[in-house]
Amino acid sequence: MSKTLERRTKQRESLIDAAENAIRAKGLAGLKTRELAQEIGVANGAVYNLVADVDELVLMVGSRTLARLDAELSAAESDGPPAPEAALVRIALAYCDFAANNLELWRALFEHRMAPDKLLPDWAISDQMHLFRHIHQPLALLFPHRATEEISITARSLFSAVHGMVALGLEQKLIAVPLALLRREITTMVKAMVTGLVAASAGS
Amino acid sequence: MSKTLERRTKQRESLIDAAENAIRAKGLAGLKTRELAQEIGVANGAVYNLVADVDELVLMVGSRTLARLDAELSAAESDGPPAPEAALVRIALAYCDFAANNLELWRALFEHRMAPDKLLPDWAISDQMHLFRHIHQPLALLFPHRATEEISITARSLFSAVHGMVALGLEQKLIAVPLALLRREITTMVKAMVTGLVAASAGS
Repeated sequence: MSKTLERRTKQRESLIDAAENAIRAKGLAGLKTRELAQEIGVANGAVYNLVADVDELVLMVGSRTLARLDAELSAAESDGPPAPEAALVRIALAYCDFAANNLELWRALFEHRMAPDKLLPDWAISDQMHLFRHIHQPLALLFPHRATEEISITARSLFSAVHGMVALGLEQKLIAVPLALLRREITTMVKAMVTGLVAASAGS
Repeated sequence: MSKTLERRTKQRESLIDAAENAIRAKGLAGLKTRELAQEIGVANGAVYNLVADVDELVLMVGSRTLARLDAELSAAESDGPPAPEAALVRIALAYCDFAANNLELWRALFEHRMAPDKLLPDWAISDQMHLFRHIHQPLALLFPHRATEEISITARSLFSAVHGMVALGLEQKLIAVPLALLRREITTMVKAMVTGLVAASAGS
């Protein structure tokens, strides 16, 4: 690697580190490229030699967040009895805990919107889709005769339902609930959804 | 009413109208008090004679949105068989339809955050809590022996789960699904949750 390329790679990592710290501390709205530039010791404009734009920078931080979430979901998956219902409850609780422990970084995953004329790059989409396997696998065990596509739809619904409980449960305003109660409710609702889906499947 | 007070009341209504239109068209981020002032024909600073601050203005628009949502949920509640499961499905679908038809105004209800040192005023909290009766009533029929407080917790969980499906389903990025599929999935999941909750209750 040339000296220049090496320096550029290091600066890029420092920029992503600084952006990650800024989002963690102040949320997505607290991300100011001018401050990041100052922090890593480059001129304001030089930030755009390291990343194409703020969207790319936020997506790179998001990619790190998703990788850490992935690791925690994997740990939850294997940390207990393999029965699919129990695994889905553990995964949902691990998601809740991750959000609570990484509140602003987790929020940034959902709050960030690309500039209107730009699409999410393929690598970011595949980072996200990859996480669904944690829900897909237990569902495939519960519904062995369903097509993959159908299971993917149920996985999205189940994820969205748990995400809604976590998002509103951790929100400061209307629905904020103590974490212990939120975890209990997530357990109850995931079990209820699984029971109900299995019952509907048996009855059809 | 004095002439001055009358004029002030009219200007205030015009300001809320203008803010509502701006949010509907451009989202919460598109709300600029300078543009609103121009639109209703007052000086920039005069906006703050009509409302205390932007937070208050956004909450007033939110109050109108919640009132329209309330009317649509009431209509859905009475428009079909009174069985609680069917009523909960209709209410969830009405919520989904309202969000799809009022996307930015509905988003603004959840995206808006008060300035860090300020609390949500009591009237805004009571506007929001009032809506929960639509979910509370059918749940009370399903679980006649449960305490009101317990039912309120389940109502929040059920709402949060449906809200998550709607929010991610209507989001442009990752999980966007066609509205017909989203409605079908909401129907499936609400039925599953009710079946599962009733089964757990019978088993306990």
